[in-house]
Amino acid sequence: MSDILTEPATEPTSGHLPLVIFTPSGKRGHFAPGTPVLTAARQLGVDLDSVCGGRGICSKCQITPGYGDFAKHGVHVAPDALSEWNAVEDRYKRIRGLIDGRRLGCQAKIQGDVVIDVPPESQVHKQVIRKSATVRDITMDPATHLYYVEVDEPDMHEPSGDFQRLRQALAQQWQIEGLQADLPLLRRLQGVLRKGEWKVTVAVHRDHHGQARLIDLWPGYFEGPLYGLAIDLGSTTIAAHLCDLSDGTVLASSGLMNPQIRFGEDLMSRVSYAMMNPGGDVEMTQAVRQSINSLAASIATEAGIDPLRIVETVFVMNPVMHHLLLGIDPVELGQAPFALATSESLSLAGRDLDLTAINPQSRVYVLPCIAGHVGADCAAVALSEEPDKSEDLVLIVDVGTNAEILLGNKDRVLACSSPTGPAFEGAQISSGQRAAPGAIERVEIDPVTKEPRFRVIGCDLWSDDPAFAEATKQTGITGICGSGIIEVVAEMRLAGLVDAGGLIGSAEQTGTSRCVPTGRTNAYVLYDGRDQGGPRISVTQGDIRAIQLAKSALYAGAQLLMDELGAEHVDRIVLAGAFGAHISPRHAMVLGMIPDCPLEKVTSAGNAAGTGARIALCNIGARAAIEAEVGRIHKVETAIEPRFQEHFVAANAIPHATAPFPNLSTLVTLPEVSFNTSGSGGTDGGRRRRRG
Amino acid sequence: MSDILTEPATEPTSGHLPLVIFTPSGKRGHFAPGTPVLTAARQLGVDLDSVCGGRGICSKCQITPGYGDFAKHGVHVAPDALSEWNAVEDRYKRIRGLIDGRRLGCQAKIQGDVVIDVPPESQVHKQVIRKSATVRDITMDPATHLYYVEVDEPDMHEPSGDFQRLRQALAQQWQIEGLQADLPLLRRLQGVLRKGEWKVTVAVHRDHHGQARLIDLWPGYFEGPLYGLAIDLGSTTIAAHLCDLSDGTVLASSGLMNPQIRFGEDLMSRVSYAMMNPGGDVEMTQAVRQSINSLAASIATEAGIDPLRIVETVFVMNPVMHHLLLGIDPVELGQAPFALATSESLSLAGRDLDLTAINPQSRVYVLPCIAGHVGADCAAVALSEEPDKSEDLVLIVDVGTNAEILLGNKDRVLACSSPTGPAFEGAQISSGQRAAPGAIERVEIDPVTKEPRFRVIGCDLWSDDPAFAEATKQTGITGICGSGIIEVVAEMRLAGLVDAGGLIGSAEQTGTSRCVPTGRTNAYVLYDGRDQGGPRISVTQGDIRAIQLAKSALYAGAQLLMDELGAEHVDRIVLAGAFGAHISPRHAMVLGMIPDCPLEKVTSAGNAAGTGARIALCNIGARAAIEAEVGRIHKVETAIEPRFQEHFVAANAIPHATAPFPNLSTLVTLPEVSFNTSGSGGTDGGRRRRRG
Repeated sequence: MSDILTEPATEPTSGHLPLVIFTPSGKRGHFAPGTPVLTAARQLGVDLDSVCGGRGICSKCQITPGYGDFAKHGVHVAPDALSEWNAVEDRYKRIRGLIDGRRLGCQAKIQGDVVIDVPPESQVHKQVIRKSATVRDITMDPATHLYYVEVDEPDMHEPSGDFQRLRQALAQQWQIEGLQADLPLLRRLQGVLRKGEWKVTVAVHRDHHGQARLIDLWPGYFEGPLYGLAIDLGSTTIAAHLCDLSDGTVLASSGLMNPQIRFGEDLMSRVSYAMMNPGGDVEMTQAVRQSINSLAASIATEAGIDPLRIVETVFVMNPVMHHLLLGIDPVELGQAPFALATSESLSLAGRDLDLTAINPQSRVYVLPCIAGHVGADCAAVALSEEPDKSEDLVLIVDVGTNAEILLGNKDRVLACSSPTGPAFEGAQISSGQRAAPGAIERVEIDPVTKEPRFRVIGCDLWSDDPAFAEATKQTGITGICGSGIIEVVAEMRLAGLVDAGGLIGSAEQTGTSRCVPTGRTNAYVLYDGRDQGGPRISVTQGDIRAIQLAKSALYAGAQLLMDELGAEHVDRIVLAGAFGAHISPRHAMVLGMIPDCPLEKVTSAGNAAGTGARIALCNIGARAAIEAEVGRIHKVETAIEPRFQEHFVAANAIPHATAPFPNLSTLVTLPEVSFNTSGSGGTDGGRRRRRG
Repeated sequence: MSDILTEPATEPTSGHLPLVIFTPSGKRGHFAPGTPVLTAARQLGVDLDSVCGGRGICSKCQITPGYGDFAKHGVHVAPDALSEWNAVEDRYKRIRGLIDGRRLGCQAKIQGDVVIDVPPESQVHKQVIRKSATVRDITMDPATHLYYVEVDEPDMHEPSGDFQRLRQALAQQWQIEGLQADLPLLRRLQGVLRKGEWKVTVAVHRDHHGQARLIDLWPGYFEGPLYGLAIDLGSTTIAAHLCDLSDGTVLASSGLMNPQIRFGEDLMSRVSYAMMNPGGDVEMTQAVRQSINSLAASIATEAGIDPLRIVETVFVMNPVMHHLLLGIDPVELGQAPFALATSESLSLAGRDLDLTAINPQSRVYVLPCIAGHVGADCAAVALSEEPDKSEDLVLIVDVGTNAEILLGNKDRVLACSSPTGPAFEGAQISSGQRAAPGAIERVEIDPVTKEPRFRVIGCDLWSDDPAFAEATKQTGITGICGSGIIEVVAEMRLAGLVDAGGLIGSAEQTGTSRCVPTGRTNAYVLYDGRDQGGPRISVTQGDIRAIQLAKSALYAGAQLLMDELGAEHVDRIVLAGAFGAHISPRHAMVLGMIPDCPLEKVTSAGNAAGTGARIALCNIGARAAIEAEVGRIHKVETAIEPRFQEHFVAANAIPHATAPFPNLSTLVTLPEVSFNTSGSGGTDGGRRRRRG
């Protein structure tokens, strides 16, 4: 054990000893002359990093001493307040570089009163700013850390295992007690210890329950960093973020289609597949685990890192994906009472999930599920968006194949899940497709001429731009993605092409030849590229019905939670999900997807579930926090709630644009069209009734 | 949860309530009328079994109420002291039988003062008597128990996982907190709970550190029993005992040759194999794990039990076997300082060791190693023979390919290992073979005629019996096993065929034509079956040298420990190991294998290592005890101790029989022969010098 760590320092209360003040923390104390700055920092609980334990190897403990008068602190710092620049620092600066004015905290010793600044990169618990609308700090405190240790050599007269001496070293030098190791690491241990001449760097995983587990080890000093994966396992796509566990940086983000789609587009069809086909759940489990390995391998290649340095994975997903990833038959989730096999968070070995593409000793954390229909993805959204800390009443909607809905504030949070189906993702739509280059994502329809213009993914120009045709030559115009379908239906309603019941008018009724008959109903032709060998992209009556069903389900879910809370309105709305990032709040409100709310109070949180996964990856305290919060969230089961059906039916109509949309005010005067009252929703349905 | 378990009983101090006295424990208390006997027993801490938790299903809580006057206790028990025989008991007796006078403790309710006897089979912590020379009680307290629980059904309004409700039930009904389960069990959980209509029997493993782990589960009430394997993994043989975990019964014992023999006969040749052949350690690991699976499968077949009911395995073995079983390269054990990768006990999953032939969720406990040369087998011997509890100074010798030696008493225990080589097991002996039918195991040589007689394994007759030839027709006479070689060398010395230095005399010197020349030395022909197509079995000068080396190593090890303790002599000797059961103490002492000690103080403990494994299997307290004791045992490393070499050389001679052998007194007068003084030991070597 290093002398530095055991060197005694006298009580910080003694006035005769040099005073040391750390900034930015403001922590201060008196220390015996000769005390290394790192030792003083540790004794005061100052957040100063060190991997090598004060041996001048890792340089993580860089500090900036301040000299001269510090009136604020009432201190004068003399030029010799710290010991002289030494050979270790000199060698380090020469070989690896050190910013002028910086010292190594383990080498610089206190000689007089001094003010010491700990720069951000020397803090263990670095603050990471989220790149999102709501600025939020994530403090780095991952489960897995690197520690450099010097292990006692074996002694025949005091026989003990190499592992026992490693554990002892870790306890003495890092205060980490009770290390455990799996056999594959015990197998490698002896070789690594001898290669490193009894100096090794170990990666130790400590979960929020305190269990210390050896993950990997390297001879001598190993710089790192280690990496983690935050995976949002959706029904349709699997999205992964590769994060640096030392500072939270996202090195790469990548996605894959969920291979289970071949067994069923939506969750219930996959549950059915498992029910109808013996071993079907095993097939789906193997498929998704394989894809996760592919994704992990490709994201490591993309980032140019060794996949063996990926030591942790956090998963968030809905309950069916949850069970299928874990290898549990999801059949019970397909029928009331929708019982989960297990609802709590899980701490697993990567090999339990066949995670072979990354470090073989990697650990997995799965966020808790909230209920049989409200999964770990919703828990992750709650972790990311923190409705439980909101002063005002916030509605958070994570739109995917299922919509996860959270409503609440610091007093109470409610959650439910609503079966919107895949229409919002462009599936079950005649010209629908997933969000990919060539897909129509933005639409405007002129209320007078009824002519559309649109934009496709991969091109910044609108379709009425002269350069558009040339610019989209590569991708073509291939279909409509989820955000596009919402916009076009809303625009059709605003342009008077669709009535409140959702019926598309004929060419005669609407005055545009873009409305064409298709059997007994009509369709609106958005784009006709057939003369250039392209598709004809239109919105059919069936498409409108699919969107009506989806948006009714979403709206009814939100309404049910508002009923439960006795809320007449919400203060703000957060749209989450990969889709939430692209959705137009204005069109969503025109469509009646979400309750009324001032437009400026509708924000997008991007992939909030993925962000929640990242937070849980970077901070183990967040794991404990969300586990506790999930226990407090009140779950509302839409499937058995009669009012859900009522809200659902009532929400079927597409409401007319009304007051909350200042920039749509000119449209309010448009005549209310009604082509046919035998449709599934009357003109007085929808919003007005829902408000009653 | 059952009413029975929650029914409150008033303080046992109240004098107005019925007095209940349990025998044989003598525990007593006052209980409210209507309290079931089982409830009273639990509140008093009386050892009364129950698997079903008082639901009248398992019948484990049978009790025998006593009626009439109990002067000793000052109690009169009225005929109506317990509630009437009820329908549950009636049905049980009718269908499954119940001894007259017995009641079910969960059904019989206290109505008045009563004396209740708990028969031995109703006690959880049954006492098991070891069938061995030293009578010893093992209290049953295995790690894995069965518990019957009633689990709450899922409720959509209070969503929680099925596993969480099972855990809650186990905590409420059995006070077992924090249950954990691996994914394969979570996968099966939902089906079993529904099949059992929310009543299940679970096998829960609780190690001596308190962690509760689900091992298996069955719908409804499952009778059991569960089984465990105690495995002594020797260099030469793998011995397994199949034990009933409810009462400790050994259902079957079985053995296999260690398949690693093909990589090297002794430990160091296997270490060499691993050093010389890349992947050689992996080959040996796979071979031994495969054999253990075969052994487990065959022992289950032999006992006629379902191998899935085998839920625990305890292993004891020397350090090299230990590392090779765990999949750790043993190379460090082949060179000073003989560092173990890990020395402590291990609690593993069966699958970590590829134990596929038994329950897939089985647990493994590996006893701790004492030092690099003194393994878990020696720890198991210490657990079985308890030198640390001995009033007198006991020397315990476990003879195998390596000899494990323990010396001590309640004040201090020392241990070492001595490299005897495989000669004592019949290997490296010209006519040697392993102990199997046809092997010579007992030998006597007439000191006058120099003619031998012998017995072979599989036949109770001596070779000079007229019926011997016919009786051994099937097996033949095939070689000499380990105990036979010790006897024949000792008998040769006693008959004056061998001098103190170990040299075999010629026919002229010894006066028998059985001494025949073989090159420059002589051999003694024990049996010549060549005319019947059999072998000629003789003892060569090389055989004598091999035995001298082996016994010198053993003796030197014991002497080293005696030196360390400053002991002139030992009070008693325990011979352990499969071999220890067959060895003749008299001949061992003639040979100078073990220090002088009155013959009646030399006992055999049979396979003490295997017994230690069984104890650790049946009682988790024993695991904690041996872990603590191993830390206290003082290890002496023979390989680096100069005195070991001195003792080894000094012990080379074969001492003459002296006073301690009363029945050999006539032989003391035989002339001391010395054929050649140029041998490796003089006549004054050996014992006399060793005593100085």
